[in-house]
Amino acid sequence: MIGVDSRVDACAAMTAGRRMHGMVQELYPICRSITGDGLRETLRRIETRIPLDIHEVPSGTPVFDWVVPKEWNLRDAYVKNASGERVIDVRSSNLHVVNYSVPVRARLPLRELKQHLHTLPAHPDWIPYRTSYYRESWGFCLSQRQLDALAEGEYEVVIDSSLENGSLSYGECVVPGETADEVLISTHCCHPSLCNDNLSGIAVATFLAKELLARPRRLTYRFLFIPGTIGSITWLSRNEQIVPRIKHGLVLACVGDRGEFSYKKSRRGDAQIDRAMMHLLSRSGQAHQIRDFSPYGYDERQYCSPGFNLPVGCLNRTPHGCFAEYHTSADNLEFVSAEALEGSLRLCLELFELLEKDITYVNVNPRCEPQLGRRGLYRELGGYPDAEQRELAMLWVLNLSDGNHSLLDIAERSKLKFPMISDVAAELARHGLLVPQRKEGEQ
Amino acid sequence: MIGVDSRVDACAAMTAGRRMHGMVQELYPICRSITGDGLRETLRRIETRIPLDIHEVPSGTPVFDWVVPKEWNLRDAYVKNASGERVIDVRSSNLHVVNYSVPVRARLPLRELKQHLHTLPAHPDWIPYRTSYYRESWGFCLSQRQLDALAEGEYEVVIDSSLENGSLSYGECVVPGETADEVLISTHCCHPSLCNDNLSGIAVATFLAKELLARPRRLTYRFLFIPGTIGSITWLSRNEQIVPRIKHGLVLACVGDRGEFSYKKSRRGDAQIDRAMMHLLSRSGQAHQIRDFSPYGYDERQYCSPGFNLPVGCLNRTPHGCFAEYHTSADNLEFVSAEALEGSLRLCLELFELLEKDITYVNVNPRCEPQLGRRGLYRELGGYPDAEQRELAMLWVLNLSDGNHSLLDIAERSKLKFPMISDVAAELARHGLLVPQRKEGEQ
Amino acid sequence: MIGVDSRVDACAAMTAGRRMHGMVQELYPICRSITGDGLRETLRRIETRIPLDIHEVPSGTPVFDWVVPKEWNLRDAYVKNASGERVIDVRSSNLHVVNYSVPVRARLPLRELKQHLHTLPAHPDWIPYRTSYYRESWGFCLSQRQLDALAEGEYEVVIDSSLENGSLSYGECVVPGETADEVLISTHCCHPSLCNDNLSGIAVATFLAKELLARPRRLTYRFLFIPGTIGSITWLSRNEQIVPRIKHGLVLACVGDRGEFSYKKSRRGDAQIDRAMMHLLSRSGQAHQIRDFSPYGYDERQYCSPGFNLPVGCLNRTPHGCFAEYHTSADNLEFVSAEALEGSLRLCLELFELLEKDITYVNVNPRCEPQLGRRGLYRELGGYPDAEQRELAMLWVLNLSDGNHSLLDIAERSKLKFPMISDVAAELARHGLLVPQRKEGEQ
Repeated sequence: MIGVDSRVDACAAMTAGRRMHGMVQELYPICRSITGDGLRETLRRIETRIPLDIHEVPSGTPVFDWVVPKEWNLRDAYVKNASGERVIDVRSSNLHVVNYSVPVRARLPLRELKQHLHTLPAHPDWIPYRTSYYRESWGFCLSQRQLDALAEGEYEVVIDSSLENGSLSYGECVVPGETADEVLISTHCCHPSLCNDNLSGIAVATFLAKELLARPRRLTYRFLFIPGTIGSITWLSRNEQIVPRIKHGLVLACVGDRGEFSYKKSRRGDAQIDRAMMHLLSRSGQAHQIRDFSPYGYDERQYCSPGFNLPVGCLNRTPHGCFAEYHTSADNLEFVSAEALEGSLRLCLELFELLEKDITYVNVNPRCEPQLGRRGLYRELGGYPDAEQRELAMLWVLNLSDGNHSLLDIAERSKLKFPMISDVAAELARHGLLVPQRKEGEQ
Repeated sequence: MIGVDSRVDACAAMTAGRRMHGMVQELYPICRSITGDGLRETLRRIETRIPLDIHEVPSGTPVFDWVVPKEWNLRDAYVKNASGERVIDVRSSNLHVVNYSVPVRARLPLRELKQHLHTLPAHPDWIPYRTSYYRESWGFCLSQRQLDALAEGEYEVVIDSSLENGSLSYGECVVPGETADEVLISTHCCHPSLCNDNLSGIAVATFLAKELLARPRRLTYRFLFIPGTIGSITWLSRNEQIVPRIKHGLVLACVGDRGEFSYKKSRRGDAQIDRAMMHLLSRSGQAHQIRDFSPYGYDERQYCSPGFNLPVGCLNRTPHGCFAEYHTSADNLEFVSAEALEGSLRLCLELFELLEKDITYVNVNPRCEPQLGRRGLYRELGGYPDAEQRELAMLWVLNLSDGNHSLLDIAERSKLKFPMISDVAAELARHGLLVPQRKEGEQ
Repeated sequence: MIGVDSRVDACAAMTAGRRMHGMVQELYPICRSITGDGLRETLRRIETRIPLDIHEVPSGTPVFDWVVPKEWNLRDAYVKNASGERVIDVRSSNLHVVNYSVPVRARLPLRELKQHLHTLPAHPDWIPYRTSYYRESWGFCLSQRQLDALAEGEYEVVIDSSLENGSLSYGECVVPGETADEVLISTHCCHPSLCNDNLSGIAVATFLAKELLARPRRLTYRFLFIPGTIGSITWLSRNEQIVPRIKHGLVLACVGDRGEFSYKKSRRGDAQIDRAMMHLLSRSGQAHQIRDFSPYGYDERQYCSPGFNLPVGCLNRTPHGCFAEYHTSADNLEFVSAEALEGSLRLCLELFELLEKDITYVNVNPRCEPQLGRRGLYRELGGYPDAEQRELAMLWVLNLSDGNHSLLDIAERSKLKFPMISDVAAELARHGLLVPQRKEGEQ
């Protein structure tokens, strides 16, 4: 894929990397949750960059086995000591309050307060991230050092939150293509001030949509910016008529850290997107991981539930739970880099380019080889011991274009790179030697 | 499987091991063959422990390509030297006479006698075991040292046997379960004083039946105590209507020596019992062998003949022909141990427990995950980096319970242990989230 | 396969090796091409050894996407220096002229002449082999040393060739068998003085035909002696009604050098001939290579084009392009050996013997084993720890002869050698225990 324009592309991407990091910085301070104004504000900031439909689904709406929860908003939260000093203050980090805490105004001795405090003793300077979405509760998160510094005595506890009927918000951006076949890109945007998980996913998805809007497209791309779990469940329950159009899908999460790529296969395990991603990563020359599907992770859990079983994989750099900073205040602006974001963006664009071009052709002269020489497609002087790679690619495409092999299949079997296979196939098609296979039901 | 009651179970099993070894001691002196009173007496001793139907099939009955042979009984057999001393005497070991020898009363010089003598020069103290079931003949087996000690001269040879129309005996113990689906356990009981081959199989099968009778059972268990080859052929020829009910089968042979477990797969190679046994052995932490099917061995040869092709494997410790003591007088009471017998019993019980519980469920909420939290099935506070194994097991069971995966399939794919998978499946079923898949033809 | 007669066979084969090398010597000087009198003369020399139908297909005949080209003949070709000396002379090697060069009579300065000269700088003493079949052009090939010795000045260039309507010749030898099922053996005979590529293939194919004519045969063998590419395309276009009879096929090329065997699988990858060849080579005790199909190579490209997809593999010793001498004057009489030709012949004969005998039988007593003992097929005295290989082979054949396994399948699964499997199957069939499976549509 590195050609004449690669340096230009590289510069554009560097810019994209820096701009994505800028977007992460912009969204970082917002106090997000699975519902509420922080989520809504995040969607509005995305909307300044790409066209976005923002949907609101009322609390109480049944969505499969679940119900859209009450909307949570937080105005302030703190713990004051006897001197009236805020010893825990959500204004310094919105991780300090357990997400979805119910309103509290109380005075408690330290001993009782401690039952509502969460720390990470192994990382005494970091604040953990905790939630209590589906059980009414409250609490504070703080560093172990902060906790150790708390003197005995009574504390004033205030969580000025509301948990009331409202709505769940999510954003949807459809980038239409020539065909109704869709690629679903889903990213969760419910976490508060955590950069890799998942402001990185939000930024990469936003810039992917932007980039795709500027390109010719065979496929339609649907971007979902949703709160984790309840968001994908809600979207699926409201869009069952769209589900059959989804031919490929990708969940983006934790794509901004400096680790190597890790791709988790769809439940099917051999979906076209799985094979495409493995083809790209295995030929990338970079260390990477391919993981089998497991039902623990992000929203692929819902897309790959047995009643849908969609071909949806998940791209990470370091996967959730595999980096110490995961779900702590150390997942901050320094933990993600412009280069990593850029690399994730480029890999996704390469993936989509492959999916766009992964056509199944039919050889119109299937009996014996066609005479490539008289069409100027074959070197003129015979007898040389080395077959040119390009000619070899042509022979592979002609030989395997029997309607049962897509260009990706051919690239894998021939061990040639997809772009060369795809290029020669286009040339053979221009010469009338290949035609795209008609799909079932097509005229 | 090790829980609160494991110490109690271990004690019970130790007792079982000692009791099985006691049964081996009791049966050891009996002169068995493929027919006759030794076999009949053996079945009666089994019957003192478990309910047993003892069948008699008359000599001459055609059974597929074979015919039930004449019944053989031996009263006495010896070789006397010129001084009238018994230099070979069946009373000291019933291996001394070639099994199924015709009656003989003769005086022979040593040279002629030697044509009827069998020894093992490589093991000069051991007596070999030889048979001549299907060709009328006679002979004696003795140690090489005994042979070397025989002086020239004339010997009196007496084999006081009978080979006459009678019947072939076998025992059958059916332990009925809730369903007609059957597990066949088959063990040969035709060998005379050989402990591993196969008093070990007889003892383990007897104690399995005893143990199963005391447990609740979904499956029906059918135990066959039969003479090798002709016994399984006879049973199959008389029970073709039962054959379709056999869903799993196990031949037990050589399960009392101190070697590691060796499981030989059924002809199908991927039968449920093959996969169950491999799952258990691979997670047992013990060295073991898995062998592919071959048509040489024990009665699995008949159960796996192409016209039946039953899912019947074979469990051994050291397989036949792989221990020097095989088919010699050294396969004696010391060669088998209570611990080894106990281990074999326990492995079989674990296997049957797995088969009992290896249900295929259907997730009743297949679209997206059900909300486990409101059912108290999921930890309340989110954001922790480590998913509990039990929750992960639940997610796997829900995700794969699409009617195409049994719990064993799920255990294998998730790499979790079967008992945990089975436990959480039962809990999910209690909550109404799973229902057993209805089989074809069921209402 | 080494038995009592093996020394006799070895002597016969040595003779065959020497006679094949003699045939290579006889054909070496002839100036062959894809059409013309050199090809025709080659076919006539083959015809002195085996019955051959020589076909002539007129120039201009459409054959699939191609057209039969004009016929090329060469009377003389040389380059003379200013002194009138032939500095390049086709009479010393017919590689000196680019094959299919158009007629030329010209005087050129060295600078212009050089544009038509081809050398191999890396091998300064060798003459390369070049062709220009499908574009009208001319040229000379010479060693780098010859080129370096050419003085400046003007040269007289003469290529006394003709390129006119005529015909394409090929030879066909059908060795009929009991059945219409065919084995296709195809070898290209268009190359001029190159011994391994492919006088070796011509010689081995000729001697195979000779040998098969002298043996009883179940299968029909069709030998094609054809010009490369256009020859197989022409044959396929004229014989589409025969194509369905081709059950196995082998392209022979480069089978005379001293390298190890290399077998390239058919496009199907698991055709019977692929599995047969792998069985033989893997049990040969000799180093060898198995290569996957690729659409670059010899006439298997056409036989394995997607519209035919015939089970045709390709046997080489060192494959084309993998030896430095390939397509140069160093592929000469010394480069090939009688021993190598003999080894290739013997391997092919073994292959055909396997294909002849690779029958699928049906066990007529599929329920339980038949009683081998009363048919004299089983050792009489039971209890020995070692099963004889031959008995084991019988049990495997009986067990797997369910109509789904050919004898080759059984040999592979049992890990026993094919000849033993085949021998015991024949014996079991003689005893009425096996019958050949009736093919679909047979009465």
